[in-house]
Amino acid sequence: MIVVMKRSASEEDIQAMIEHVEALKMKPVVLRGTERTVIAAIGEERFAGAGSLESGPGVDEVLPILAPYKLASRELRAEPTVVKAGSLTVGGANIGVIAGPCSVENEEQICATARGVKAAGATALRGGAFKPRTSPYSFQGLKEEGLKLLAEAREQTGLAIVTEVVAPDDVELVSEYADVLQIGARNMQNYRLLECAGKSTRPVLLKRGPSATVDEWLLAAEYILDAGNPNVMLCERGIRTFEAHTRFTLPLASVPYVQQKTHLPIVIDPSHGTGHTNLVTAMARAAIAAGADGVIVEVHPNPDKAMSDGYQSLNLPQFQEMMRQCGRIAEAMDRELG
Amino acid sequence: MIVVMKRSASEEDIQAMIEHVEALKMKPVVLRGTERTVIAAIGEERFAGAGSLESGPGVDEVLPILAPYKLASRELRAEPTVVKAGSLTVGGANIGVIAGPCSVENEEQICATARGVKAAGATALRGGAFKPRTSPYSFQGLKEEGLKLLAEAREQTGLAIVTEVVAPDDVELVSEYADVLQIGARNMQNYRLLECAGKSTRPVLLKRGPSATVDEWLLAAEYILDAGNPNVMLCERGIRTFEAHTRFTLPLASVPYVQQKTHLPIVIDPSHGTGHTNLVTAMARAAIAAGADGVIVEVHPNPDKAMSDGYQSLNLPQFQEMMRQCGRIAEAMDRELG
Amino acid sequence: MIVVMKRSASEEDIQAMIEHVEALKMKPVVLRGTERTVIAAIGEERFAGAGSLESGPGVDEVLPILAPYKLASRELRAEPTVVKAGSLTVGGANIGVIAGPCSVENEEQICATARGVKAAGATALRGGAFKPRTSPYSFQGLKEEGLKLLAEAREQTGLAIVTEVVAPDDVELVSEYADVLQIGARNMQNYRLLECAGKSTRPVLLKRGPSATVDEWLLAAEYILDAGNPNVMLCERGIRTFEAHTRFTLPLASVPYVQQKTHLPIVIDPSHGTGHTNLVTAMARAAIAAGADGVIVEVHPNPDKAMSDGYQSLNLPQFQEMMRQCGRIAEAMDRELG
Amino acid sequence: MIVVMKRSASEEDIQAMIEHVEALKMKPVVLRGTERTVIAAIGEERFAGAGSLESGPGVDEVLPILAPYKLASRELRAEPTVVKAGSLTVGGANIGVIAGPCSVENEEQICATARGVKAAGATALRGGAFKPRTSPYSFQGLKEEGLKLLAEAREQTGLAIVTEVVAPDDVELVSEYADVLQIGARNMQNYRLLECAGKSTRPVLLKRGPSATVDEWLLAAEYILDAGNPNVMLCERGIRTFEAHTRFTLPLASVPYVQQKTHLPIVIDPSHGTGHTNLVTAMARAAIAAGADGVIVEVHPNPDKAMSDGYQSLNLPQFQEMMRQCGRIAEAMDRELG
Repeated sequence: MIVVMKRSASEEDIQAMIEHVEALKMKPVVLRGTERTVIAAIGEERFAGAGSLESGPGVDEVLPILAPYKLASRELRAEPTVVKAGSLTVGGANIGVIAGPCSVENEEQICATARGVKAAGATALRGGAFKPRTSPYSFQGLKEEGLKLLAEAREQTGLAIVTEVVAPDDVELVSEYADVLQIGARNMQNYRLLECAGKSTRPVLLKRGPSATVDEWLLAAEYILDAGNPNVMLCERGIRTFEAHTRFTLPLASVPYVQQKTHLPIVIDPSHGTGHTNLVTAMARAAIAAGADGVIVEVHPNPDKAMSDGYQSLNLPQFQEMMRQCGRIAEAMDRELG
Repeated sequence: MIVVMKRSASEEDIQAMIEHVEALKMKPVVLRGTERTVIAAIGEERFAGAGSLESGPGVDEVLPILAPYKLASRELRAEPTVVKAGSLTVGGANIGVIAGPCSVENEEQICATARGVKAAGATALRGGAFKPRTSPYSFQGLKEEGLKLLAEAREQTGLAIVTEVVAPDDVELVSEYADVLQIGARNMQNYRLLECAGKSTRPVLLKRGPSATVDEWLLAAEYILDAGNPNVMLCERGIRTFEAHTRFTLPLASVPYVQQKTHLPIVIDPSHGTGHTNLVTAMARAAIAAGADGVIVEVHPNPDKAMSDGYQSLNLPQFQEMMRQCGRIAEAMDRELG
Repeated sequence: MIVVMKRSASEEDIQAMIEHVEALKMKPVVLRGTERTVIAAIGEERFAGAGSLESGPGVDEVLPILAPYKLASRELRAEPTVVKAGSLTVGGANIGVIAGPCSVENEEQICATARGVKAAGATALRGGAFKPRTSPYSFQGLKEEGLKLLAEAREQTGLAIVTEVVAPDDVELVSEYADVLQIGARNMQNYRLLECAGKSTRPVLLKRGPSATVDEWLLAAEYILDAGNPNVMLCERGIRTFEAHTRFTLPLASVPYVQQKTHLPIVIDPSHGTGHTNLVTAMARAAIAAGADGVIVEVHPNPDKAMSDGYQSLNLPQFQEMMRQCGRIAEAMDRELG
Repeated sequence: MIVVMKRSASEEDIQAMIEHVEALKMKPVVLRGTERTVIAAIGEERFAGAGSLESGPGVDEVLPILAPYKLASRELRAEPTVVKAGSLTVGGANIGVIAGPCSVENEEQICATARGVKAAGATALRGGAFKPRTSPYSFQGLKEEGLKLLAEAREQTGLAIVTEVVAPDDVELVSEYADVLQIGARNMQNYRLLECAGKSTRPVLLKRGPSATVDEWLLAAEYILDAGNPNVMLCERGIRTFEAHTRFTLPLASVPYVQQKTHLPIVIDPSHGTGHTNLVTAMARAAIAAGADGVIVEVHPNPDKAMSDGYQSLNLPQFQEMMRQCGRIAEAMDRELG
């Protein structure tokens, strides 16, 4: 940690900071510049209270040196993690393709979608049974009934099931039916839920919160890893910015950046990341060219009749075309979909 | 709802949309302009599926007309809501002042803080027992032990207790000790938690998520109101922007805007909103001048020894001075602190 | 335009708005809903003053229907514009590759770079002679001397020259040496400069300002088109968001969105868009997969000795490798670099 | 400057960086931690090329220590600067009030406004003659004719004139008529214009660009100061964020932050900062309570007939009421309007 003192800091302030750093079991090194004094604190900086150094007299700012996460760090584990769950493989030469509707609506809808996306090459089925909805007046999902329909769709197609869990108490129930637990963007910092997912044996797809920094996102992954579950897939689904022509802004530079910082695989969600059907395919292609280990895409047999998110869903012919185009990009990356 | 058709939309597309609007039980009015056709859909637009109109053939965009929230709306209830909880009143002529440490650390710390902030004029004590922390390696709070210490501090000072609840299962326990349940920014869209808080008899302080729009924030309040709890205080604590010299950006225009849109009172948190001790007092003054119904401020007897958030906490003399200055601003607003 | 009246608007307010709309030469259509009245104003809404309707008594908000730009609009001109300037073609089957250093530093540096990027397949040379720099203490460019060195590099390689112009008075001088005038992000709304560039016969590369909406960017293009210059290339180089691990956030969804809204070609700048050498190649690949019509990349023979922007420049071997990878992606898109 | 090496950096990489730092005439101090090596570079870091250290082999990141601006720095000059221009004083005990229309439209409009705002207590008149407009189809201002009308309004009222200059060539002309040169947000990084304004004898009101960091804003001021003009007023007018219910987000924490970093006075623009008439007064009060040295407010006799920005203009009675309320806040701050 680097403590930058104010130009006006007194010798006494500097001494106080030296003692403070020592009390935190770090070794202080004092660097006197022409304009300011800087105190480097060498040692383990990942613990409560270090940030509070900033309140010390004469302190201007405190700059961290070490990444705040450990288990997620590529420095700890150089080999990329490959996550497998039934028919789904994410990482390595395989680019996983998770497709399906926003919400499970009924048996026909989910099974027809499952068959359609499977035929087009998808390797897992997504579908929400427990839906976190912005408005209390919106459709909240079929709950356990929806989970059963997902299991039925798996039965028919062999596709692994990816579905969201929204509360700690539901982790057990959802784990009975799902192959992968999805933690949604709204719950990225629902730490009780992360801890419960960390105790599950199911792999977890952890969506980035729309205002989370990458460090905060990796620290959320760290909660799951620290609780004992090594199978975490990161999912970038867009951040909130001033751009209004897309629902969120999809920052694909997350892909190479995250791959340099962590060994965990990264999946891109071009549906939420853009919010408009007519932008999804181009961003799925771009995600794969950026090096993504998977994509998760909303597909619905009749988007304009969908109970949620129809405006960003592909229909089946659009999904087939997306798969065709993405397959060519994957090939140019020496990887394959599936 | 206003459906804007593309310039290229065919007569067939327009007919399809008219039928679609009718199927949603709204009345379509077709407006043919020189460049585009617009279809106004008159009726109740707050239900699942309407957004999916955007997927219809020939549709360019869909613009909502009605606010998506109802119970929170000032159009529904013109009279401002005043929330009372023991010594705390928020709204009307009273500007509530909630002060205390980020985390409850031990009896001496919390009781000394309680006595100090009470002497300076605070009307409620804040303090975290269940702490949602970005890193799994940070201090996570004293949990029930912390709640007991808060109750002890109330015993000694008479101050109402405001403390955070982070999981649905904890609502009952926290309600036993607290006068006000705080829902933190990270949990603003933890709907299960909102529903549980909505069934509690305790007033709720609902913090805005750092990337939530005001509509999303009011819809989160709507979850609580809809579950039966009318005592919701909104708390603006800053949004995430590109500004890096403050921890968050505190948009005080939220105060007059929210007061025009909703009857719920609004509290400002200048501590999280700035993230730096030396900016807190100025923003507390500004909040009151903007018309805020309360402020919530982090105060710690020894910020540089605090187990969390010391860098943004006032010490007791700084808090006294803040109260003196804010008192003068309140007077200029014909209101009073307390 | 759609004028949404407040629930509390009186019949008199509605009448006043009807007259106001008529005074603006638009036709008012009154839509009375169950909760609010909406007045649709049919006609040409692209003129000064219409926005001021919002100040009328009883008005809640005003929603525009038509895009504010015309000449740039794809509705006006369905065929994509292909811009050619010497060796550079941007649009159609060709993906232009503009490469070179941030600043022209000396003859050896610019000519060596030109030869190197040409050998690797670049179709134009970039290099700054007039440099807009954030700090007055930074290197400001070689000015006319730099332009001469660029001309010399063109002489040696045949590469078209893309260089920035920062002031209206310089347009003539820069046009003498350059094949393409670059308008930088800081000057996207320097309207006097846009007008001068609009009177030039040189094609213009118009960078998006880091906080400009797409509409504002297309309106800036409209200034150039309206002044008589049809050869405008849009250049997305990233927007300012809360992300701090990249210099800017590169929103590649701009590519398909802009291609749907305008006939102008779009070029991506992964160097400024990420700000870090080790993210550039992945984002160049992604840009091409998203459908970009060109890329502009910073290349320097010795990035760690560069007088500006070394941290985001590729060296020549890195650029060769980028070209190899991007070539494969272009092929998968049925296009080619060059 | 602090150079953080990667965990994987070799001894050779570290040696290369030591030599590189020495070549930049800074003194390297090597700090070997348990996880990483850090090299502190002591000396003057404000020059071209230092940022390029990041490209060195084995480097993870480079953290600056010193503020990049000097002349604007409060460390250089502890005493706050008070700017005077005719009837206007900004700084010290005086809170300047600059009021007037967005655009000068005609003699009656500008003179009536001038008399009205003067009667209500304003100390300067604002009004645009050269208007930078987002759309080429919007009213672009009366140009020199507008300047003459402003001079006429000064004649009648004695109010100092604040008006915008948009191009280097116009600085001389505008300086003939204006008491204060305004540099608009779109031109904050139009360096040629800043240099010309820096050579003028007129004080300059420098608006913050909507995506500029505070450092970038102070560096823009540095251009003016460095060119010889010491009379710079900073003007915060809001930043671009995801908030859509206000035109921009007005971050009032800029006020205390800027006052700690620089000696230059700061003025707040609640009109552009909110974009809605009904939010202006509350934010003007808040600005003064935050400690602002001035406010600049759009006032128009008939906002709904204004040729620009009517939706955010106060009418004269609204401005009078704003002045009454702000006067009380100023008094509570031991300052006075005027």
